[in-house]
Amino acid sequence: MSVADEFTLDFARPERIGLEETIYAAGKSAEQIDAILAAAGERGARLFLTRLDPEKRAALRHDLDYCPVSRTAVFGRPNAVSGAAPVAIVAAGTSDVPVAREAERTLAYAGIRATLIADVGVAGLWRLQRRLDEIRAHPVVIVAAGMDAALPSVVGGLVPGALIAVPTSVGYGVAEGGRAALDAVLASCAPGITVCNIDNGYGAACAAMRVLHAARALRELSP
Amino acid sequence: MSVADEFTLDFARPERIGLEETIYAAGKSAEQIDAILAAAGERGARLFLTRLDPEKRAALRHDLDYCPVSRTAVFGRPNAVSGAAPVAIVAAGTSDVPVAREAERTLAYAGIRATLIADVGVAGLWRLQRRLDEIRAHPVVIVAAGMDAALPSVVGGLVPGALIAVPTSVGYGVAEGGRAALDAVLASCAPGITVCNIDNGYGAACAAMRVLHAARALRELSP
Amino acid sequence: MSVADEFTLDFARPERIGLEETIYAAGKSAEQIDAILAAAGERGARLFLTRLDPEKRAALRHDLDYCPVSRTAVFGRPNAVSGAAPVAIVAAGTSDVPVAREAERTLAYAGIRATLIADVGVAGLWRLQRRLDEIRAHPVVIVAAGMDAALPSVVGGLVPGALIAVPTSVGYGVAEGGRAALDAVLASCAPGITVCNIDNGYGAACAAMRVLHAARALRELSP
Amino acid sequence: MSVADEFTLDFARPERIGLEETIYAAGKSAEQIDAILAAAGERGARLFLTRLDPEKRAALRHDLDYCPVSRTAVFGRPNAVSGAAPVAIVAAGTSDVPVAREAERTLAYAGIRATLIADVGVAGLWRLQRRLDEIRAHPVVIVAAGMDAALPSVVGGLVPGALIAVPTSVGYGVAEGGRAALDAVLASCAPGITVCNIDNGYGAACAAMRVLHAARALRELSP
Amino acid sequence: MSVADEFTLDFARPERIGLEETIYAAGKSAEQIDAILAAAGERGARLFLTRLDPEKRAALRHDLDYCPVSRTAVFGRPNAVSGAAPVAIVAAGTSDVPVAREAERTLAYAGIRATLIADVGVAGLWRLQRRLDEIRAHPVVIVAAGMDAALPSVVGGLVPGALIAVPTSVGYGVAEGGRAALDAVLASCAPGITVCNIDNGYGAACAAMRVLHAARALRELSP
Amino acid sequence: MSVADEFTLDFARPERIGLEETIYAAGKSAEQIDAILAAAGERGARLFLTRLDPEKRAALRHDLDYCPVSRTAVFGRPNAVSGAAPVAIVAAGTSDVPVAREAERTLAYAGIRATLIADVGVAGLWRLQRRLDEIRAHPVVIVAAGMDAALPSVVGGLVPGALIAVPTSVGYGVAEGGRAALDAVLASCAPGITVCNIDNGYGAACAAMRVLHAARALRELSP
Amino acid sequence: MSVADEFTLDFARPERIGLEETIYAAGKSAEQIDAILAAAGERGARLFLTRLDPEKRAALRHDLDYCPVSRTAVFGRPNAVSGAAPVAIVAAGTSDVPVAREAERTLAYAGIRATLIADVGVAGLWRLQRRLDEIRAHPVVIVAAGMDAALPSVVGGLVPGALIAVPTSVGYGVAEGGRAALDAVLASCAPGITVCNIDNGYGAACAAMRVLHAARALRELSP
Amino acid sequence: MSVADEFTLDFARPERIGLEETIYAAGKSAEQIDAILAAAGERGARLFLTRLDPEKRAALRHDLDYCPVSRTAVFGRPNAVSGAAPVAIVAAGTSDVPVAREAERTLAYAGIRATLIADVGVAGLWRLQRRLDEIRAHPVVIVAAGMDAALPSVVGGLVPGALIAVPTSVGYGVAEGGRAALDAVLASCAPGITVCNIDNGYGAACAAMRVLHAARALRELSP
Repeated sequence: MSVADEFTLDFARPERIGLEETIYAAGKSAEQIDAILAAAGERGARLFLTRLDPEKRAALRHDLDYCPVSRTAVFGRPNAVSGAAPVAIVAAGTSDVPVAREAERTLAYAGIRATLIADVGVAGLWRLQRRLDEIRAHPVVIVAAGMDAALPSVVGGLVPGALIAVPTSVGYGVAEGGRAALDAVLASCAPGITVCNIDNGYGAACAAMRVLHAARALRELSP
Repeated sequence: MSVADEFTLDFARPERIGLEETIYAAGKSAEQIDAILAAAGERGARLFLTRLDPEKRAALRHDLDYCPVSRTAVFGRPNAVSGAAPVAIVAAGTSDVPVAREAERTLAYAGIRATLIADVGVAGLWRLQRRLDEIRAHPVVIVAAGMDAALPSVVGGLVPGALIAVPTSVGYGVAEGGRAALDAVLASCAPGITVCNIDNGYGAACAAMRVLHAARALRELSP
Repeated sequence: MSVADEFTLDFARPERIGLEETIYAAGKSAEQIDAILAAAGERGARLFLTRLDPEKRAALRHDLDYCPVSRTAVFGRPNAVSGAAPVAIVAAGTSDVPVAREAERTLAYAGIRATLIADVGVAGLWRLQRRLDEIRAHPVVIVAAGMDAALPSVVGGLVPGALIAVPTSVGYGVAEGGRAALDAVLASCAPGITVCNIDNGYGAACAAMRVLHAARALRELSP
Repeated sequence: MSVADEFTLDFARPERIGLEETIYAAGKSAEQIDAILAAAGERGARLFLTRLDPEKRAALRHDLDYCPVSRTAVFGRPNAVSGAAPVAIVAAGTSDVPVAREAERTLAYAGIRATLIADVGVAGLWRLQRRLDEIRAHPVVIVAAGMDAALPSVVGGLVPGALIAVPTSVGYGVAEGGRAALDAVLASCAPGITVCNIDNGYGAACAAMRVLHAARALRELSP
Repeated sequence: MSVADEFTLDFARPERIGLEETIYAAGKSAEQIDAILAAAGERGARLFLTRLDPEKRAALRHDLDYCPVSRTAVFGRPNAVSGAAPVAIVAAGTSDVPVAREAERTLAYAGIRATLIADVGVAGLWRLQRRLDEIRAHPVVIVAAGMDAALPSVVGGLVPGALIAVPTSVGYGVAEGGRAALDAVLASCAPGITVCNIDNGYGAACAAMRVLHAARALRELSP
Repeated sequence: MSVADEFTLDFARPERIGLEETIYAAGKSAEQIDAILAAAGERGARLFLTRLDPEKRAALRHDLDYCPVSRTAVFGRPNAVSGAAPVAIVAAGTSDVPVAREAERTLAYAGIRATLIADVGVAGLWRLQRRLDEIRAHPVVIVAAGMDAALPSVVGGLVPGALIAVPTSVGYGVAEGGRAALDAVLASCAPGITVCNIDNGYGAACAAMRVLHAARALRELSP
Repeated sequence: MSVADEFTLDFARPERIGLEETIYAAGKSAEQIDAILAAAGERGARLFLTRLDPEKRAALRHDLDYCPVSRTAVFGRPNAVSGAAPVAIVAAGTSDVPVAREAERTLAYAGIRATLIADVGVAGLWRLQRRLDEIRAHPVVIVAAGMDAALPSVVGGLVPGALIAVPTSVGYGVAEGGRAALDAVLASCAPGITVCNIDNGYGAACAAMRVLHAARALRELSP
Repeated sequence: MSVADEFTLDFARPERIGLEETIYAAGKSAEQIDAILAAAGERGARLFLTRLDPEKRAALRHDLDYCPVSRTAVFGRPNAVSGAAPVAIVAAGTSDVPVAREAERTLAYAGIRATLIADVGVAGLWRLQRRLDEIRAHPVVIVAAGMDAALPSVVGGLVPGALIAVPTSVGYGVAEGGRAALDAVLASCAPGITVCNIDNGYGAACAAMRVLHAARALRELSP
């Protein structure tokens, strides 16, 4: 059995669920990733990669559009991003930016514009209040926050749109690894917040795309 | 300081975030809840109550439309439910029905119809496959599942709409309390699934309403 | 060895640390508590009791000033409460009131007035903003909050005084037992928040009294 | 006491339980492993090694048949693998292949053929359905899966044979370390799934060999 | 939607995986269970029930063959148990007997005889040694053990057959709930032990039946 | 969006809560930190940095007053430290000194003198008793302790001032990471101890400054 | 199989390890316990029972010498207790007395006198210091402590004898269940403390008897 | 404040508790350790060091008798080891030898001989049985075991002496870090086993020395 037998690309995914196949690079060897890219290249397909460390990227034989902050890469043709931004991505602190950028890059790969708003955590509430109208103007809001993750609760009490919280692993002591942030957003007293896995900016962007899909479907149901 | 000083009702919430004030009954005494209901009654306002045990309900002085399965209650005038159902609520097992019913009652209180589909867990996959087209026809899908919570992952690979998973506390051993189910849906290999707190059918319904709000806002952005 | 050998009252505590001996009733039998009260009575001493369930209180032979909300009791003469309130006790939700009342009763036993402000959680931020000046007027602020415990972080970014957070066990799912609230306040992004054990309103009041003691000592250091 | 006193090889194990002695290399120094190999060599015995890092292998003085993907090694004569494959090894994702390969190598060392089927996770259910008949044709099925580990539950509802799940540590956030995957398979709603320790491909292969032994014993009981 | 819509019985399960549909009673209301039994009765089908508390059983309208020790019940015709016992069920202590009995009743429902051997924990090793030959004579061995769960490891080093460990929740302190026993058997130094969820005697019996199925399939592969 | 958009400095913090903006360096890239320092420099502002590893510090372009033991740095003009020390910082063991130094440096940055007393853990109680009068002379006492963190409880029974415990991550086995120390101080039997996050010397110093602020405010309330 | 097959009494235990067979009543039914007592009675043997709730005791048919505080019982002839007390049992608080009494009763059953010293926790260190010489006079010291369990560390720094710590489940919040106390004593900075399971007064007494056995054996080694 | 203020050596410890001061090197800098050694050298005192990594040892200026397996070091004159060995140190597997060696070196530093018996884990019970008489001949037995840590339970049922279990961090998956081994020995069904922190060979040796001290004290009590 060769490396080629170790993967099965899911090119039918967009038709089924409206989201393209993505390669989670963290658990794969450079040899496996190169074989996957070769298979996609033969088919003329493009691919999005997440959690690609700089070292592993350097070991790959294929050309990629790589972003070291978000550790994401695009193989093949990029998408044109156009129109108003339906999604706001809010990062509680500067340290949460990599996760926010992962979400931004995921949306851009799908041709969706997003507005990134950083360092508006609740320790200085005026920073959030200054940007609140801007955030409220977006139908879908992603909030990335670590440590106590109080920001999603505050935003959840002020913003009516779809709200997707991404806890981050930023912090130390009880905050280390992000479980405290995760539990805080799950236990939020603000109603209707939904949550993704820790540091999962990619998943938050996919969830946002599912909301956009739902909106199109609802328009068809009651035009 | 009297009981009347122990609560501050948030009647401005619908204007801010499109969701009505709700009373979480589990942590409150019957005396506190009666005082809250009296204050709402004076104002001519209605209220929705969650996690109201039969014993506590029996101790209340006010009339309520009570559902013992979901332990929810409506104080004041119900809403008329009309139109096509934009939301499907899928319960993996029969034991997950109370959580699903809490979501259903929350949506009904807001006048939103939902389709409840029960006992389609993955141990007998044909049960899901038989109902798949029906589920896919809904723009928003809530999935309540306990134990291994494998159903949201399978649904997430087959349905394109907004997908809100509610892990439940059903089960024993490692499943007890719902942490295993919660972690499973957070770690799902299907992209774009969002998650609520364990047993939080109310929150899932609120999240669904946020998606419906986002859809209306998106229509205004690009009509 | 009799019950009388099973306890050793610490009547020298006020001289050492400025706080009176207190009886933690939860782990003691009614027989033990009655023996303790008898010993204090013989000495002409008064005592404060915490975590005294109504059932156990009913089984006691001694007279007590009992508060069922906070489950605290005073044996012996109460203290006169006078002067301005140096301490504000803020309860995030109505469900956090019992813990706040335990802190209030502990302070009152020591003759210290406190201002209790309830149900100002961040899900409706206007409720906090309406009371903010009042809270800021107190040199010491205790904040009791469960679930995501976002309120202490927000207060910590707005109030300069000594800030003591008490996580509560209010909530279900990941919030159950209060570990999520505890971790959130420990990981708070607002600087200088200190934390007590879950549901420990008594300890928060003692910490406030330590701050008042420190203030007196500082005045002696630099009058 | 010398290094030679630090180990006691269990060469009687095959007679007792039908499985050969194996060296768990992770907790041993290169010096200890070399001494063990020398002792086996003197006796003319062969040995299987698991969890042997490339660095430690490079530090060994003895020749080994080493596989860097599964980090296993064979010291001494390999076994001839023959006959139909009684065991299928299913890897949910490409990242689970190293664990699957550890199981495959363990079985091969014992002369047992296995069929490896990779990347058939539930996010794209068609991939599993395409291979289902092939999997069902094997009396014993090992399933390695990380993250939400939903695949064993789905397979468990479709396949009648002995089913051994191996949770893997693949993933991040709540999935990191494999506890989420482990709990999911333990809590599986599909009946009769058994579980090994996280990443324990070796143990899964041994469990499969125990099933093969049981089959032989059953044939003797009722020929 | 009525109670009848809240369940979907999986009568095709025996054909798919060789195991009959079973009702997990713990998470279901008496009303739901009665509806399920009525549906089975109409179809002329029998059913097995697990985790049925005496109180809930008393609330049911249907006749059942109930065992209070294992809290299992049979609805409909029992199976004739015949032939030699292919399965040994070993209970480490007297306190583990209820879990062992659940496994025994599950097998008996399927017509499979089992030998129950109780109170042979390692604290008095002679008890195990006295019964060892008897245990070894069974191709499949289930071991139920709580607390430190050392027995499965010892048995695993002495018995060659398929070995299924069921950790139990017996014990207090660190043993409470069974997580210590579970982790011990997962981490066992004896190779090839497989594990079920805590207290899951039912699942262990199903796993044993999967081994018996595999044995039949292997006989067909190489007759 | 450039790096300059990734942070929003909170220069209004001293007016709001009496504490200066501080940069948590651990989660930020050298590029981000340099941009923050440049922005502060343009404004003529100074900054305090915590958790700055030597490697990251070496990668910065700006000049800093750096302390490798506490991993803190001062950018801009230092403060003159004067007057009697209102704060004692007690380190249980030599290994807790880095955390104690972080608190000391934070206070010095604000112009507050502190007395550091090291290695007086309870295993040799005479060491504490020798320094007890000195510790009691300080109105505010910070105690940094790892492992079993018994020292704060002993100090709490002997010292009347404000008592801030900082659990440290010193230790191995159950002590690793500091959760055991954290839980011990939260569960302390000595009344009125408050707690900061693990290893959070910075937060303890901020809490001490809040006590000093409260003392000034109390003097204004009752002069 | 009858109840008589569900237990195997280990009457050879005293010869093997010097400790008598004991019945852990918590996990056994009244029917099982009565059968065990009958079997012992037939043999003329006595038995010690632990964790026997008053309700279960009331359901037994046999006569017992029962202690409701420690929930222990003696079946058969008691032992005469004589000589100096080689063991001191120290209870940190009044709430820890039940665990201390379990140890005391276990030793008394074996004919060993013990000195019980209660309520000498570190919050009021003078209480311990007053009794220190008395404690030091015992070669073996058992310390039962809950919450932060600081007492064993302090005693461990002052007393040279064999030191056995028993964490108790006394407390709430992070202390609930005793894990905080357990981790504190395991992580103790005082050298040579050994630890038993939470609330395991019986085990601590057995450990003390093992020390007494070791002392006798040492005397034989070097008389 | 200089490095010399960061430590306070406890040279009075032997008189108080019969154990010498020891330096825990893991949490200290090379600069701190060198200062400590210099202070001891000036006083003519010797010191024992634990958890000294080879890298840190290489950075020290002082001469030491260093053992890389146990990572311990002796500064100053060694002790003559003489007489029969009162302590047996049993290592379950070869991977547990470093912890066993730490105990052996600690005892040797105090002049106490110990017998080390390695790789006698329960997976091959004959290995233990072959050495059982030898183990039983020692009044004090230390057992180091990782993974499932079943060996202490088996030994505890066969050996009457003082029994000190040291769980080790050997293993992966649920065994990683040693919590599974720790919980298993705490929950042991064999009576009277005491437990030290994970990997704490040093503490086990100190506990053994406390038993030897108790034996001497008992001889004085009843000569």
